[in-house]
Amino acid sequence: MNPATFLRVLGPEPWRVAYVEPSIRPDDGRYGENPNRMVQHYQFQVILKPDPGNPQELYLGSLVALGIEPQEHDLRFVEDNWESPALAAWGLGWEVWLDGQEITQFTYFQQAGGQVLDPVSVEITYGLERILIALQKVDNFADVRWTEDFTYGDMNLKAEEEHSRYYFETADVERLRVVFDEYEAEAGAALASGLVLPAHDYVLKCSHLFNVMDTRGAIGITERAAMFARMRDRSRAVAEAYLEQRKALGFPWLGRNPGGLKSPPAPKEHTRPAPQSAAALLLEIGTEELPVADLGSALTQISQSIGPLLAEARLEHGPVQVMGTPRRLVVFVEDLAPGQEEQKIVLRGPTADRAFDASGKPTAAAEGFARSKGITVEALQFREFEGGRYVVAEVEQPGLSADQVLAELLPGWLSRVRFDKGMRWDGQGVTFARPIRWILALHGEHVVPFEFAGLRSGRTTRGLRLVEPESWQVTSPAAYFESIRKQGIEPEVRTRGNAILERVRALAAEVGGTVPDDPDLLNEVTNLVEAPNALRASFSEEHTSLPRQVLIAVMKKHQRYFPVEGKDGRLLPYFITVCNGAKRSIDPVRQGNEHVLRARFADAAFFVRQDLEHSLEEHLPRLGMLTFQSQLGSMLDKVARIERLTGELSLKFGLSPNPREVALRAAHLCKADLATKMVVEMTSLQGEMGREYALRAGERRDVAEAIAEHYLPRVAGDRLPGSLPGMVVGVADRLDTLAGLFAVGMEPTGARDPFGLRRTAIGLILMLSGQGLRFDLRSGLEAAASGLPVPMDEGALSACLNFIIAREQALLLVDHRHDSVEAVLTAQGSDPAGAYQALRALERWMATPEWPDILHAFARCARITRSEEISSTADPSQFIEAGEIELYEALTRAEKLDRSPGSVEDFISSFQPMIPAITRFFDDVLVMAEEPTTRRNRLALVRQIVDMADGICDLSRLEGF
Amino acid sequence: MNPATFLRVLGPEPWRVAYVEPSIRPDDGRYGENPNRMVQHYQFQVILKPDPGNPQELYLGSLVALGIEPQEHDLRFVEDNWESPALAAWGLGWEVWLDGQEITQFTYFQQAGGQVLDPVSVEITYGLERILIALQKVDNFADVRWTEDFTYGDMNLKAEEEHSRYYFETADVERLRVVFDEYEAEAGAALASGLVLPAHDYVLKCSHLFNVMDTRGAIGITERAAMFARMRDRSRAVAEAYLEQRKALGFPWLGRNPGGLKSPPAPKEHTRPAPQSAAALLLEIGTEELPVADLGSALTQISQSIGPLLAEARLEHGPVQVMGTPRRLVVFVEDLAPGQEEQKIVLRGPTADRAFDASGKPTAAAEGFARSKGITVEALQFREFEGGRYVVAEVEQPGLSADQVLAELLPGWLSRVRFDKGMRWDGQGVTFARPIRWILALHGEHVVPFEFAGLRSGRTTRGLRLVEPESWQVTSPAAYFESIRKQGIEPEVRTRGNAILERVRALAAEVGGTVPDDPDLLNEVTNLVEAPNALRASFSEEHTSLPRQVLIAVMKKHQRYFPVEGKDGRLLPYFITVCNGAKRSIDPVRQGNEHVLRARFADAAFFVRQDLEHSLEEHLPRLGMLTFQSQLGSMLDKVARIERLTGELSLKFGLSPNPREVALRAAHLCKADLATKMVVEMTSLQGEMGREYALRAGERRDVAEAIAEHYLPRVAGDRLPGSLPGMVVGVADRLDTLAGLFAVGMEPTGARDPFGLRRTAIGLILMLSGQGLRFDLRSGLEAAASGLPVPMDEGALSACLNFIIAREQALLLVDHRHDSVEAVLTAQGSDPAGAYQALRALERWMATPEWPDILHAFARCARITRSEEISSTADPSQFIEAGEIELYEALTRAEKLDRSPGSVEDFISSFQPMIPAITRFFDDVLVMAEEPTTRRNRLALVRQIVDMADGICDLSRLEGF
Repeated sequence: MNPATFLRVLGPEPWRVAYVEPSIRPDDGRYGENPNRMVQHYQFQVILKPDPGNPQELYLGSLVALGIEPQEHDLRFVEDNWESPALAAWGLGWEVWLDGQEITQFTYFQQAGGQVLDPVSVEITYGLERILIALQKVDNFADVRWTEDFTYGDMNLKAEEEHSRYYFETADVERLRVVFDEYEAEAGAALASGLVLPAHDYVLKCSHLFNVMDTRGAIGITERAAMFARMRDRSRAVAEAYLEQRKALGFPWLGRNPGGLKSPPAPKEHTRPAPQSAAALLLEIGTEELPVADLGSALTQISQSIGPLLAEARLEHGPVQVMGTPRRLVVFVEDLAPGQEEQKIVLRGPTADRAFDASGKPTAAAEGFARSKGITVEALQFREFEGGRYVVAEVEQPGLSADQVLAELLPGWLSRVRFDKGMRWDGQGVTFARPIRWILALHGEHVVPFEFAGLRSGRTTRGLRLVEPESWQVTSPAAYFESIRKQGIEPEVRTRGNAILERVRALAAEVGGTVPDDPDLLNEVTNLVEAPNALRASFSEEHTSLPRQVLIAVMKKHQRYFPVEGKDGRLLPYFITVCNGAKRSIDPVRQGNEHVLRARFADAAFFVRQDLEHSLEEHLPRLGMLTFQSQLGSMLDKVARIERLTGELSLKFGLSPNPREVALRAAHLCKADLATKMVVEMTSLQGEMGREYALRAGERRDVAEAIAEHYLPRVAGDRLPGSLPGMVVGVADRLDTLAGLFAVGMEPTGARDPFGLRRTAIGLILMLSGQGLRFDLRSGLEAAASGLPVPMDEGALSACLNFIIAREQALLLVDHRHDSVEAVLTAQGSDPAGAYQALRALERWMATPEWPDILHAFARCARITRSEEISSTADPSQFIEAGEIELYEALTRAEKLDRSPGSVEDFISSFQPMIPAITRFFDDVLVMAEEPTTRRNRLALVRQIVDMADGICDLSRLEGF
Repeated sequence: MNPATFLRVLGPEPWRVAYVEPSIRPDDGRYGENPNRMVQHYQFQVILKPDPGNPQELYLGSLVALGIEPQEHDLRFVEDNWESPALAAWGLGWEVWLDGQEITQFTYFQQAGGQVLDPVSVEITYGLERILIALQKVDNFADVRWTEDFTYGDMNLKAEEEHSRYYFETADVERLRVVFDEYEAEAGAALASGLVLPAHDYVLKCSHLFNVMDTRGAIGITERAAMFARMRDRSRAVAEAYLEQRKALGFPWLGRNPGGLKSPPAPKEHTRPAPQSAAALLLEIGTEELPVADLGSALTQISQSIGPLLAEARLEHGPVQVMGTPRRLVVFVEDLAPGQEEQKIVLRGPTADRAFDASGKPTAAAEGFARSKGITVEALQFREFEGGRYVVAEVEQPGLSADQVLAELLPGWLSRVRFDKGMRWDGQGVTFARPIRWILALHGEHVVPFEFAGLRSGRTTRGLRLVEPESWQVTSPAAYFESIRKQGIEPEVRTRGNAILERVRALAAEVGGTVPDDPDLLNEVTNLVEAPNALRASFSEEHTSLPRQVLIAVMKKHQRYFPVEGKDGRLLPYFITVCNGAKRSIDPVRQGNEHVLRARFADAAFFVRQDLEHSLEEHLPRLGMLTFQSQLGSMLDKVARIERLTGELSLKFGLSPNPREVALRAAHLCKADLATKMVVEMTSLQGEMGREYALRAGERRDVAEAIAEHYLPRVAGDRLPGSLPGMVVGVADRLDTLAGLFAVGMEPTGARDPFGLRRTAIGLILMLSGQGLRFDLRSGLEAAASGLPVPMDEGALSACLNFIIAREQALLLVDHRHDSVEAVLTAQGSDPAGAYQALRALERWMATPEWPDILHAFARCARITRSEEISSTADPSQFIEAGEIELYEALTRAEKLDRSPGSVEDFISSFQPMIPAITRFFDDVLVMAEEPTTRRNRLALVRQIVDMADGICDLSRLEGF
C-alpha cells in the first residue's frame, strides 16, 4: 500500500526499490500468544520493475546471503495469488515456504488501481520475523534475539497484546465509521485538487479503519462489498491521476537505470547436426512454479494438441508422452522423422479456355504458367474447380526438414495453451500460467531452433533450485531423463504420485496408522514437487483435543499435510509432509514443519478456546453487529426470518412435530457460528463449527447435524443435507437471501455476482431436485418476501424466479437436450424437483419407438388450436359426427385416470390411448366447420386434450413438433 | 513521538535505540521550493538512557564516520531547548550547526508525559537530508543523489509540492476537527481499558491533526492552548499508565545492558606535592556547551561568591580572575596560601563549680576535660557563658592545608551555582546549566582533590573538539593558559569579545561597510565560541529587495550573523559570521553558511511573495478562520471590537479628527498581518510586517506606523508607541483582551498564565503611565465589556481591574516604597498615569522636612473621624469656639484653591496652610463634646478635611501614620 509500491508500479517507467515496512494487520492479532502471527510484523518489501528475468534466483540468493542453508531446508513456491479489493489491485504468484512456513509473498503484479500494468512489476515481500525464527532456531517470535540482552518480545510483545485487545475488544466502531467517512471525503477533496499523494494517504487510512472495524466483527458481507467499492473508486482515481501526472511530465525516468541488477550471460551451447533418420523429440518448457490446477490443465491441453500438431507438421513419429512437474512441461516423441515426405501438389493455372486457344494450342498464358512452375506445357493437366475448368501443374514438393516445420509451428502451438488466469511478465505480450524461463528442444542431438516468449530454444535444462549443478546442457533426449532423474526429479505425474502414496503409506504404517484416501490432496501434493521426499512429523497430543475437522482443515488446507488415523479412526498426533528434493539433513525440515503446525494449531486452539467461553446460543446476539445488507438488516435479523420461514416450510413439506422442532432449533442457531472466532478465521468451517459448538453446548445431535447440513451443497457435486430439518433450514436461508437481495435491487448483472447469488440459487435447486422435494418456488419466494423489512414488488419477484429458473436450465443442460429442458422448464420451472422428474420421464418417452406418433398426435391437436380463442368446454350434445364422439369418450376416459401433478409419465400414459381416436377425428371430422357453433365445440374438444399437458411440459418446444 | 522514544525514556530501565523516522511537519511545507525545508524529512533518532557520559563525543565521532571532515567545517552546539506541549515533555540541549546549518537536535530529556525523568535520556536527532547536502556538496535537497540515476527530488519532490498544497490550501478543517474529537475519545477509551500503546497512537494522530489544522491557519491562540491541554492530559495519562505497567512487571530490564557503548578509560595523571608557599590556584569546570545566558549568569555568580569562599576558607590570596567560554568556567587566584594560619580556639568544659570543689581543688571532671584537650589542669581558664561560669581550654589549632579546606568547601560552592533552567543528566542529583564533564583543580602543580557531579578533580583539560590533542594534562596554572591559547581558545570574555569586534569591523571595512552597534549580538556571539574566527560571506543581491527588518531578523535571530551596512545605511549583500577554531580551509564554512542563509532568505522571500499577492486589507478576512477564543470568536471579531473601542477611546483621549481617522484605519488593519505567512512563520515580526505590507499597499505612513506601534511596549523597557493613534489602538487591543478573557473565566491562576495576561496588563500600564495619559481603567474595561459577545459581570470586572492594579503595584515596587505605592494605588490605582504622578509627588513631599508635621496633622484628623458615622457637612452657624471657626475658614480657603483631580501636589499644597489651624483646633477645642449636635458638627468639619484626600492617596497606608 506504500506509494513507493502502489504508485510506482503504474506506467512504463522503471523502478526498483527495497524497504522495511512495519505492516499492521489488525485481524492477525493474537494477543502475543501465537508463535508467529502478529498485529504488526516487519516486512521487507522489494519491487523490481520490469521483471529482471531471474527474480526467483535473486530472491533465493538473498536467502542464502541471510544464512539459510538450502540443503537443510525445504524451499517451495506454493501458488498464492494476491488481491487487494480496496486498491483494485491483483497479481499472480506464490507464497514461499521454508519448511512449510510461509516466509515470503512473491507476486507478479498484473493490475493496480484498476490499471493494467505494463511492464509487470515483481513484488517480493519478506516476512522478517519468520525468517529470523528459522535463522535463530527459536520457536516463537518473542524469543528472537534483538540484541544480546533484549528479545523481540521485549520490544513488541506488550504491543501485540494491547493492540490485539484494542482491535478485538475496544475499538469503537461508530467513531471509526465517522472517521472513515471524513477521510473518504478528504481523499475526494484532495483528488479534486489534483493531489495524488495526499489522496492516497487517505485511502490508506480508510483501508486501515476498515480493517479495524472488520476485526471488531462489525462489517457484514454486503457492507463489506460496499466499502470495498468506495475505496476502490478512490484508488482507481488516485492511480489515474498519478498516471496523468507522469504522462504530463513525459515519463521522465524512461531509459534510466534503477539499479544495477544483471542477469548472468547465457552459456554458449554445443551444436550438433540435425538427425538424418528418425530420432526422439524432446520439448521441455521450463517455468517458474506452476499452480497445481494450471499444471494439470496444461498437461491436458498439450496431450490433446500434440497429435494434431505433428499431423499438421506431416512428420512421422512413434509413441508420444506428455509429462510435467511444477517447473517443466515435457513432451517426448519417439522416432520423429527427420523431415516430411515428399508430396505432390497441384497448382492451379489459368482457365482452360484462356490457356488453350480454340485450336487446342497453348497460349502465352499457359506457357508462362508452365514455365513458372518449372514444367513443360505438355505436362499441364486439366481439372474442374468450382464449376470451372482450369489448367493445373502437378509438381513434386520436397518435404521440409523437421527443424523447419517445427520452428514454424511450435510458437503458435505453445501460444494456444490457455489458463484460467493467464499472466503477463515481460514485454512480449505472451501470457502463461507463470513465467517461462527456458525452452529445451532437441531432435535427437540437435536443437530445434525457435523463439517464444522472448526466449530462444536450446539444450540447457535446469535442475532443482540451489542444488549443484543448477543447469546443464543436455546431449540427447535420453540423457535428459537420466540427468534430471539423477537429481531425483520425476517428470511423469502418475509415477511421481504413486511414489508419494507408497511412501506416505509406509510412513503412516510405521506408527501403526493409515492415511485416509484423498485423491485431491495426493494430486495437489504430487504437483507441488518435482523430486518428492516424504517425511513424518508429529504434533503435541494436547492438540488432539481440538475438533477433528479443525485439525484436518488446518493440516490439509493450510499445509497440504496428510493426516494419520489410528485403527479406531481417530487422528494420531502425526502428519506426513512431502518436501522437494533430498536433504543433507531432514531434521530442520521436520522441525520447521512442526513449528508451523504448532503455530497453526495454537491459532486454532486460541479461537476454539475463546469461542467455548460462550455457548453457541450466546454467540447469537453478536450477529446483530454483523450487517447482512444495509436495507435488510443484520445477520440476526436474517436468522429471525429464517426461523419464521422454516416454520412455514416445515408445514409445507409436511414435517412431523419432532423434526419440525429440530428444524426450528437449528434455524435459530444456524448462523451463530459466524460470530465465532474460528469461523471468522476459517470461513470454510462454517456449519462444521456450528455443529461442533452445538454439541459441546449440549444441543441435540440432530439439531447439530441440521446446523451443519443447511449449508449443503456447497458446490455442485457436494453432498446434500441428510435430514429433512437441515434441508428445510437450507431452503429457508436461500429463499431469504434470494428474495431479499432481489428486493433491494442487488441482483447479479453481467459477470458480476458479488453476493454469490448464482451459487445460492444452484444450491437451492440441487437440494429440491436432488431430494425430489416438490415445491413451488414462487410461493416460497412470496413467503420469504412477506418477511422482509422492505417491500418486494411483482417485477422483482418474477426476476428472481426467472433467475433461478435460468440456473436450473444451465444445470440441466449439462446432461440433457436443450429442447426437452425447455419443454419442462417452461411448464414447471418453478418446481425444480417436478421439472427434473418430468424431464427424465419425457426423455425416457422420447427414446421410445412410439414417441413420433405421440408427438405427432399431440402436435395436430396443439397446432390447430394454437391461434384460436376458445373459452368454453366441449358440449357433448352438440357433437355431430362419430369421430367427435369417439374422441370425446377417449378424452373422458383419459381424464378419469389418476395423474399426479406435473407428471409427464401420467400425462403420456393417459394421452397415448387417445391417439387412435385423435387420428380418426382429424381424418374424419372437419374441425374448422363453417357453422360457428360446431367449429367452436370441436376446437374446445381438441383444446381440452392439449390442456392436459399444462403445467407438465410444453411439447411445442421439442424439435420435430 | 515514537513510542520507542516517548515511552521508553520513562522510568528507571536502560534503553538504547536508533532508528530512521520519516518525520512529517505540515507547516514546514514549502512546495518543494526551499533548499532544505520540507514537509517530510528523514530523521535518524537515537536515544541513550542513561547518559553514557560522553554522548557529544560519540555523536561527533559518528559525523566523522559519515565523512564530515572536522577541520574543514564549523561544528557548533547552539542552545536550543525542546518542548512538546502536546506530550507534556521538555528537555535542554542544543541544535548542532554545521557551517551555520542546523543538522541535529541534541537534547537531554528532563520530562515526558508530565513525568520527571530519572535517569535522563540523551536524544540525538540527525537531519539526514542536511547532512547529505553537506556531504554531497549540493545546494538543494532535491539534488541529493539517491542512486546513480535518481535524485532525492525524483523520490520526493512531487510529494513535497502536493503535501504542501494539501496542508496549506486543501485540508478541510471542519472534517479534521471531527476526527480530532473522535480520536481523542478513542485515546480515552483505550486508556480506560488500560491500553497504553493504542492510546498513545491516538494521541499522536491528534497531534498530527492539530498540526494540519494549525498549518491551515485555523487555530487561534486560546484554542491552541485548549487543544494542547487536551493532548497533554492524554499524554500524561499514557505516561502514567506505562509506568504503572512497567512497575507492575518489576522493571524487568533493570541491570540489562542495552548495547555496548563504553567510555574511554580515564588517563593516569601525574602527581605533584602540594605547594609549600603561596601558589596560583586554577579551577576549570569543563562543561558541554553552556547557553549564552547561563554562561553569563555563572560567571556573575562565581565572581560574587569566590571572594566569600576564600574568606570562609581562611586562605590568604592575591588577585582573583573569573573567565569563561561555552565549554569552561575558569577561576584563577594568584598567590593562594598553602594553608590556613594557626588559630586559637576556646573549648568549653564543665561548670566552674563542678570542675573545682569548694576548696578550689580540681575535680576529676576538670582533670578529665583538661586531659582530653591535651593541656594541664593548671592551664584551664574560666569564662562566663549565658550567665553560667565554666572552665574552658584555650588551644592552638594548626591551620588546615589549602587542599583540605578546599576539598571540603568546593563541592558545596559549586552546587550553589543556580540557573534559570537547571538540568539533570546523571544519577548524582546535581543540576547545572549543562553537563559538567571534567574538573581541573590545580594549586601550583598539585591537584586539589575533590569530587563533584560524579567527577574527580584532576589536571586534565580538553581543547577544541576534534582538534588534536583533544585533551592533555596541565602541569601548572601558567601552563594551562599557554596550552589552551595555543589552540586559539581565549578564556577571558572581554578579550574574546574585543577580538571579535575588531575582526568583524575590519571585515566589514574591506567591502566599504560598517556593522551597526549591537551589544546583545556581540555578547551572544562572544559566548558561542571559544576560539573565535570571523569570516565574511555574501548573499545574492536579489534578496536585498526583501524588507530590511526581515533580512536583519533572519540574519540575527536565526543565524547570529552581523549584517553589514553601506555608507547610506542600506544593507550590503554581505554578512559576517564567527566560527569556532582555525580551519584548514575556510571555504566550506563560508559556502555552508551562504547555503543556509540562501535557504533562509528563500523561505522569507517565499512568504513575502505569497503575502504580497494580496493587499494588507485583503488578508483581513482570513482572520475569521483564526479563533481568538472559542467564546470570544475569531480574530476578525476581535478586530471589530478593537475598532469600536478605538473610536470611543479616541474621543476620550481627545484626539482631533485627523489622528482619529488614522487610529481607526490602523485599528482596522492592526491584526491583518497575523494572517500573513511571514508573520505566521516569524511571530516576532508581527506589527513590523503589518507596517511593511501597509506601506506596500499604499496605506498612509502614519497608519502604517500606528499598526507597528500598537504592539509596543513588547516587554518592560521596550519603547512606547510614538504616536497617539498607535497608543489608542494598543490600549483598545489590550482592554479587549483583558476584559474578554476575564469575562469567560480565563484569568491566570497561580503560575499559569497561558494567554500572557500579565504581560498584556503590564503593557497597558506602561503605555498609560509612560505617556502620562490619564485614564480610568474601570470605565475602559466597562467600555470593552459592552462590546463582548458574552456578558461580563461585576465580579469579573473587579477581578480584572484588581489584576491590573496588582501588576501596577509590582511594577512600582521595583523603584518605590511599599507604603507609598499602596497609598496611591488604594486611592487611584485604576488610573495608572495618575497614580504614577501621585506617587512621585508623594515621595517628593515625604522627603521634605515638613512631612512629619503634615502627616501628623492629617493623621489627627483622620484618626478621630475614622470610626465615626458622619453624614452631614459642618454647619458654620453652630460653631462655638474660635478654634472651630478658624479651622473652618482655613478649610474654606483651601477648598477654593484650584486642584486638579488626583494631584497629590495640589492636595498637599492646599492642606499644608491649614496645619496651624488644625493644631489649634485639636489643642483648644474638645471635638468629642458631650452635646451631640456640637460633637457632630465638629466631626463633620474634620471629616471634610480628611475627604480632601479622597481619590488622591490614602495617607493612612504610610508608615508612621
